[in-house]
Amino acid sequence: MIPYTAPVRDINFVLGELLEHASLELPVFTETGPDLIEAVLEEAARLTEKVWAPLNASGDREGCRLEGDQVFTPSGFSDAYRAYVEGGWNGIGVAEEWGGQGLPEVVASAVQEMLHGANMALGLCPMLTAGAIEALSQHGSDKLKSRYLEKLVSGEWTGTMNLTESQAGSDLSQVRTRAAPEENHYLLSGQKIYITWGEHDAAENIIHFVLARTPDAPEGNKGISLFLVPKFLVNEDGSLGERNDVVCASIEHKLGINGSPTCTLSFGEKGGAVGYLVGEQGRGLNHMFTMMNEARHKVGLEGVGVAERASQQALAYAQERMQGRSSKARGGAPCAIADHFDVRRMLLSMRARTDALRALALYCAAQMDQARHNEDAAIRKAAQARVDILIPVVKAFSTDQAVEITSLGIQVHGGMGYVEETGAAQLLRDVRIAPIYEGTNGIQALDLAGRKLQRDQGAALSTLLEEVGNIARQLQGSVKLRPLGDSLTLGISDLQAAMKQVLEQGSDDAQGLDAVQAYATPFLSLAGHVLCAWQMGHAALVAQAALDAGSNDQVFYHAKLAGADFALRHWLPIGRAQRSIIEAGTQSLGEFGVHV
Amino acid sequence: MIPYTAPVRDINFVLGELLEHASLELPVFTETGPDLIEAVLEEAARLTEKVWAPLNASGDREGCRLEGDQVFTPSGFSDAYRAYVEGGWNGIGVAEEWGGQGLPEVVASAVQEMLHGANMALGLCPMLTAGAIEALSQHGSDKLKSRYLEKLVSGEWTGTMNLTESQAGSDLSQVRTRAAPEENHYLLSGQKIYITWGEHDAAENIIHFVLARTPDAPEGNKGISLFLVPKFLVNEDGSLGERNDVVCASIEHKLGINGSPTCTLSFGEKGGAVGYLVGEQGRGLNHMFTMMNEARHKVGLEGVGVAERASQQALAYAQERMQGRSSKARGGAPCAIADHFDVRRMLLSMRARTDALRALALYCAAQMDQARHNEDAAIRKAAQARVDILIPVVKAFSTDQAVEITSLGIQVHGGMGYVEETGAAQLLRDVRIAPIYEGTNGIQALDLAGRKLQRDQGAALSTLLEEVGNIARQLQGSVKLRPLGDSLTLGISDLQAAMKQVLEQGSDDAQGLDAVQAYATPFLSLAGHVLCAWQMGHAALVAQAALDAGSNDQVFYHAKLAGADFALRHWLPIGRAQRSIIEAGTQSLGEFGVHV
Repeated sequence: MIPYTAPVRDINFVLGELLEHASLELPVFTETGPDLIEAVLEEAARLTEKVWAPLNASGDREGCRLEGDQVFTPSGFSDAYRAYVEGGWNGIGVAEEWGGQGLPEVVASAVQEMLHGANMALGLCPMLTAGAIEALSQHGSDKLKSRYLEKLVSGEWTGTMNLTESQAGSDLSQVRTRAAPEENHYLLSGQKIYITWGEHDAAENIIHFVLARTPDAPEGNKGISLFLVPKFLVNEDGSLGERNDVVCASIEHKLGINGSPTCTLSFGEKGGAVGYLVGEQGRGLNHMFTMMNEARHKVGLEGVGVAERASQQALAYAQERMQGRSSKARGGAPCAIADHFDVRRMLLSMRARTDALRALALYCAAQMDQARHNEDAAIRKAAQARVDILIPVVKAFSTDQAVEITSLGIQVHGGMGYVEETGAAQLLRDVRIAPIYEGTNGIQALDLAGRKLQRDQGAALSTLLEEVGNIARQLQGSVKLRPLGDSLTLGISDLQAAMKQVLEQGSDDAQGLDAVQAYATPFLSLAGHVLCAWQMGHAALVAQAALDAGSNDQVFYHAKLAGADFALRHWLPIGRAQRSIIEAGTQSLGEFGVHV
Repeated sequence: MIPYTAPVRDINFVLGELLEHASLELPVFTETGPDLIEAVLEEAARLTEKVWAPLNASGDREGCRLEGDQVFTPSGFSDAYRAYVEGGWNGIGVAEEWGGQGLPEVVASAVQEMLHGANMALGLCPMLTAGAIEALSQHGSDKLKSRYLEKLVSGEWTGTMNLTESQAGSDLSQVRTRAAPEENHYLLSGQKIYITWGEHDAAENIIHFVLARTPDAPEGNKGISLFLVPKFLVNEDGSLGERNDVVCASIEHKLGINGSPTCTLSFGEKGGAVGYLVGEQGRGLNHMFTMMNEARHKVGLEGVGVAERASQQALAYAQERMQGRSSKARGGAPCAIADHFDVRRMLLSMRARTDALRALALYCAAQMDQARHNEDAAIRKAAQARVDILIPVVKAFSTDQAVEITSLGIQVHGGMGYVEETGAAQLLRDVRIAPIYEGTNGIQALDLAGRKLQRDQGAALSTLLEEVGNIARQLQGSVKLRPLGDSLTLGISDLQAAMKQVLEQGSDDAQGLDAVQAYATPFLSLAGHVLCAWQMGHAALVAQAALDAGSNDQVFYHAKLAGADFALRHWLPIGRAQRSIIEAGTQSLGEFGVHV
């Protein structure tokens, strides 16, 4: 199997040349220089290439198994996780006050991409822990924090998010798990499904964050609270105590991420699982969404990471596999399939899209750094508004595209892509979950077109589009890149027109929600295409400038130019077509519902 | 699991209301009436719903196993195949002179769709046999025909196509299997890979059709001949003789179609497998392509069948699964997810595309009937030219779309789509092979844009587009359907413009092949969208006329109108974007090759 290569050069291009290390200029990061970041990325490359990636295929084949109520992860997974913990990776993006290393989000995100690219099933374990850290540090009492946070940050203990029940998926208001108050804690009873890494053998304790209802709580969202439920209770001195009353009842047989145990957890079969309230009673969903917002960004990075691996693998295979002859114009000799323009189309489509998705996801991370750490409150607020707009796009667009990219990766391999030994098929199987969990991509689209767009009447997106327009104008001012600028300009005006329609019809009281639902997914797709095209337009300007300045790195920058041309002129048109779809209105969807 | 329902009503709509049973007017079919066809479809529905479909999931779970050189198919498969043979299904589309029932291709194709929708893995077995019947009846000597054809037509024996070798996939000129002449036969030696149903336990004999080289044959395509190699030799009296020197060396572990054994076959390990020349020496590839053309159409129907099952399953699930509330405008009560417009968008997209792909594939089958049986040679020739254009579109577009449709089916199921028990994931895993085998979809696109379009300078496609234009004008003449006609008109002019560019640049001697390769896939996608939109436009006219005439079948026809509106106004724009992609030229693809 073709080994994984961590895309350090491409990540450095985004961090250094596109984002110009803006996060490092924040006062909180003054001691962090570009050299340190490069060293961190090189170290992460070693871990992911040498320790995590080699277990990706074997973990898929072997899967997890449940014996009694114990889950055993695939051979090597717990060691690989330990190497990650011992390397100090779990806390790299966590504030130093919580025991982390306090590196910028943009760096932690780049490392996340590598972890998922190397081994998505294993990468899910720390991803969920990161969500738990976020919830606990933001909403937990000092007592809970002092008892649980350190070991979650170090990764000695792992975290989970317990939201879904069989009747409560996208609609969490239907949660039925109960939490009955005792003296200084609650007793939980109920069943949660689809709990990622809900039970496993890679850490000595697992800290579940669980949505449940207190006895007299009102119906619906406002009756739901968030509870911390440890697998093993923790004594005053921090040592592990009794086993809590939460057990794994079954694990799922899934399409992919077979190395990641997806558990049904039963709480309170022996009287009640001890749990502690996190934050305010009745605000469980709000608290959970704080942490889900971050998790959604990381799911987008899963898409990027797996797409990167698919792109690498397809290219390497296509450069090896001899079949047919090149065109007469190029000599007509026997050639590798990467030489055929139809195969190049697939390879470049994979590469250009992956680069674009990475650039957008890391741009979003850089804005998170500004939102958290800029000293100017107005800048923090503006950055947060931008993050709010970008997160649903990064989550949904990266993962939808990753499904297409991994499927193209199979296609490049031909028959070899359909047999499991090349690993191409696993990438599609694995990443196919990403458009579903942490809020389906339909939910992301509603979040964007319904909530985020309506609440400020498109102000944050409009401001962002001004920056996109700046890039478009710079491209139009370049002799060589003018067609890219023209294409981007068309994309911007399509997105503006679509936004206008969504805002007008979405605020109509009678039809509002139906219209927003009808337009949401096409709108998100259009926004994703335009924003990715923007990033690639920016990349083209940087690459052209480097070449004009006589860079030695000709191959790299020329490849970026080819990718940018593809993204703006071969890929963006698909996104632009979404405008016509939105303009076609809701009639057929209305009819359909009545007539099936 | 939601059971399979054979789409008899939808098929009857295409055969009777869109195609107006034109095939039945051919003299050869005068004794076949619409009633007989409906009875055949009802009978096929029973077989596929009650016998084949229930084995689809269990066959996937159980898979095939190799013991020694024997392959055992999943439990129930050989019985289900026997029921198919005993029902006389294998020969329904085969001419009576060869022992078949001589029904129109359009009927045989409709039955094929059902077989694949019910159980694609099992459906592959007779699909390959059909190819073998085609090759033998067209190119075999009388002696070979008398000995092998009857039992292939009845299905007592099955057939295979042995093309691929590890170094010879899309480029079959690299075939190395040898065929050394003996007295009245040849001795074959070599290894073939990816042989579908190459060895199994469902029939008493397997007849392999094998591409191989004779000793002094020239290099390349012209040195390849076609041989018939039976698993068991057949005695003069038709009884089975010795086991031939061909064995199954291994079976593949694949992404899907696990009930279909994909074999590596070794020929001549004990001195040579006895084989008989089929047709002329050196014309093996031509002979094979006769049968592949038919097989490609059937692979397109696989796409339709699996897409149909995915659409049914997703709709049924979405109508059951309660989650959230409907919009205020529609009452705001707790509702099934099929009520949400974002989910309706997915469901209608699946349904409209499936209907469109079926209509196009069956239109192609109806043209095959004309090409074979019309008494007027000019009509036969024109129909064949149309079939030649349509087959790569039906094969590639149906299967690419089926991958998207089955993936949407997973998405509609949410988390339940990712666990294997619902069966939604299997449909994606199964159908993902269809864009790869029988010539990858890239090869289909080259066949269309390179060979078929260039050889008559677009004449056949232009004539077809005149009919598309007729439908567009009829739609524009209807008050209710005018927007559909406007949309279709735009699609036609995009396709005409793209065709002009492909013809102009594709005939450039220096760059021709590269340009055609660059444009081929976008061109096929554009053609597929326009031709499917045409079929749905036609369906809209028929449905509107039925409603205007006071049909009782309101629900059915209104659903067809909703589907047509979606296809023409929400789906066609994506296809139209391919024109911009073609107009963006080949520059980035040229650059990319130089710079990776």
